[in-house]
Amino acid sequence: MSIIETLSRDAAQAAKTLAQVDTQTKNTILLDMARSLRDNSFEIRSANLIDLASAEQAGLSHAMIDRLTLDGDRIEAMAHGIEIIATLPDPIGVQRDLSTRPNGLAISKMRVPLGVVCMIYEARPNVTADAGALCFKSGNAVILRGGKEALHTSKVIASVLQKVLKQYGLPASLIAVVPDPDRALLMELMQQRDTIDVIIPRGGEGLINFVTEHSKVPVIQHFKGVCHLYVDKDADLDKALALLLNGKTQRTGVCNALEGLLVHSEVAPKFLAMAATALAKHQVKINCCANTQQYFAAAQVLSDEEFGQEYLDLELAVRQVKDFDQAVAHIHRFGSRHTEVICTENELTAKRFQRTVDASVVMVNASSRFSDGGELGLGAEIGIATTKLHAYGPMGLESLTTEKYLVNGDGQIRA
Amino acid sequence: MSIIETLSRDAAQAAKTLAQVDTQTKNTILLDMARSLRDNSFEIRSANLIDLASAEQAGLSHAMIDRLTLDGDRIEAMAHGIEIIATLPDPIGVQRDLSTRPNGLAISKMRVPLGVVCMIYEARPNVTADAGALCFKSGNAVILRGGKEALHTSKVIASVLQKVLKQYGLPASLIAVVPDPDRALLMELMQQRDTIDVIIPRGGEGLINFVTEHSKVPVIQHFKGVCHLYVDKDADLDKALALLLNGKTQRTGVCNALEGLLVHSEVAPKFLAMAATALAKHQVKINCCANTQQYFAAAQVLSDEEFGQEYLDLELAVRQVKDFDQAVAHIHRFGSRHTEVICTENELTAKRFQRTVDASVVMVNASSRFSDGGELGLGAEIGIATTKLHAYGPMGLESLTTEKYLVNGDGQIRA
Repeated sequence: MSIIETLSRDAAQAAKTLAQVDTQTKNTILLDMARSLRDNSFEIRSANLIDLASAEQAGLSHAMIDRLTLDGDRIEAMAHGIEIIATLPDPIGVQRDLSTRPNGLAISKMRVPLGVVCMIYEARPNVTADAGALCFKSGNAVILRGGKEALHTSKVIASVLQKVLKQYGLPASLIAVVPDPDRALLMELMQQRDTIDVIIPRGGEGLINFVTEHSKVPVIQHFKGVCHLYVDKDADLDKALALLLNGKTQRTGVCNALEGLLVHSEVAPKFLAMAATALAKHQVKINCCANTQQYFAAAQVLSDEEFGQEYLDLELAVRQVKDFDQAVAHIHRFGSRHTEVICTENELTAKRFQRTVDASVVMVNASSRFSDGGELGLGAEIGIATTKLHAYGPMGLESLTTEKYLVNGDGQIRA
Repeated sequence: MSIIETLSRDAAQAAKTLAQVDTQTKNTILLDMARSLRDNSFEIRSANLIDLASAEQAGLSHAMIDRLTLDGDRIEAMAHGIEIIATLPDPIGVQRDLSTRPNGLAISKMRVPLGVVCMIYEARPNVTADAGALCFKSGNAVILRGGKEALHTSKVIASVLQKVLKQYGLPASLIAVVPDPDRALLMELMQQRDTIDVIIPRGGEGLINFVTEHSKVPVIQHFKGVCHLYVDKDADLDKALALLLNGKTQRTGVCNALEGLLVHSEVAPKFLAMAATALAKHQVKINCCANTQQYFAAAQVLSDEEFGQEYLDLELAVRQVKDFDQAVAHIHRFGSRHTEVICTENELTAKRFQRTVDASVVMVNASSRFSDGGELGLGAEIGIATTKLHAYGPMGLESLTTEKYLVNGDGQIRA
């Protein structure tokens, strides 16, 4: 049996043990994990320095190195994240009644773990702790396959968590790390559909496409975030401006930042004049339709096909729309089903937007930047799904579970 | 653009229209579809005769020809099935509140269609009507790719449904039939991950494996049904016998029939004597462990590796287990996560079984034969998932939907 087969089989075996552990024990273990991360801060940072040295030698980008770096604050944030997971309600075992059939059979559903979750990610060592804790709380084993850039750090973090598991008599293979970033092992990992229940890739579009292309295990995908703010004719324009600036400038390199602004023609003259001044102050580069060029100095005019870019930078696409329907049509053509926002004081228009727009998060009068698991009250998130099967949008604990049917009778047979 | 690309793109486009149609209109259309199937009974049966003639010429098995045949009763059953779907609650638009955040943001979830569902199936023409109606009610477009054996019948059934859609100004491509059973088209269909949201194969293990192997679109799998009855030491043995006979003999060629019997050693002598007589009357062939051979004349003794067969016939595997844990271990090793049954009067043991056993339907004192969508109160079913992602067990309307997040604020921005 190969390394990967052994790892996956052991994880599946370990998951069966964990499914029987009660909530209180799981929470106690999580709190111990948090404490243990703090206690081992020195070891984690030492391993991180090795990864950082290789990263600099390899000439990785500043953004990549930033993501890779773990300082005291970030380790504290990881530990605190695990403490929050300990306070969240346990989805496992939750039961809901469906019906009692005419023959007396009582039908209900019970929430159960998926089994084995495999995370494939790049250079974020915090995923190791976040995913480890979320999967543990939701009763799943996790197989962590991080990029080679963060491998030393990930291994130390995982070994800290594993030590705690062992103290409670639980198998270390509940939180398993693929020990080698070799691509052949990754390919083999993606074939283990008898033992792995789901693969969640986190990273750039290239990684997601690669995994989707090669995996025989079901994949939950998180594609890019091309999020829009639609300023309706009934918008409060001051609110709209605040949402625009927050969505575009508060943090740019993230998938829930705004990439597009749509403005109803009735309020376009007034709002675009306000927006132009404010965006210029933040040095936001503007790409716009021919109708709105007049408001922006040095804007680049986009053709109809050039909308829909994920800039991940101080750059924004702007378009005037003649009405609600044109706004929704634009969103459906160019959006990525991540997060879409309307600014309006008209409740009917707001409801219509939320019902009509096909995106995982549809907001009224709120910044797109709230679109993440923590801000939506899910605790940490394991990812944000932009495809619809199983999960759609930020994925918390419940997304790592499924439901089985329970049928209770007193000897009923089928006629 | 190829036939398949056009078909899939049209279906995705049509799905957007359907997402906006209200429940009452959908139900009216469904009732019209049922009426129209009855009115076109002659045309459907004529097409069916063509398929039956080819099937006989091709020497298809009796079971296959039986599945293919549509008589008046079966057309009536199809029509009635659609009428039941019209009476079921519409999952679309159902909203549940999650929380109000400290900053005042109200978080909720709204149920929405998946988009485009693709059914790949073999010779059952009724799938065309069932899947067409279930997908329509749940707001999805459906692409139907049936086997060549039933193609004439399926096309006529679909065209009857499409005519009704057109009468209401809806696109016929909501219920699309792949017009040609060519394998190259099937391969192409399974690559359309930009337009098709899920593929549900229905048929034998070969078909399911083929689709899983080649599809780039997410697949919901329905593998075989290796269902067990565990007769606990606290079982009512008369109930147990009734459950055994019903599960094994009421209908044999189905996935929710019993294939295995596990008996606690304490009640084995008494129960196996009862079972042997009754099973002999029904001419059930017995394969058993060495410990139980004494009870069955002419039984074949199975080695440890030979359990876990899906017989789909009057044939049963019997094993004596020393306790509850050994029963569960056997189920986890040899079961197919379809349906597992315990017979016991001990409520604690029953609860423990339902919590512990990893299967999509876990029953107490009820026949495994109840494990289908209709019997569980879901109305018709689109399939039975034996993998856990998205759906697990019989899939009704809700399984054809997902939930998006709604966020409602009054101008909140992120600090």
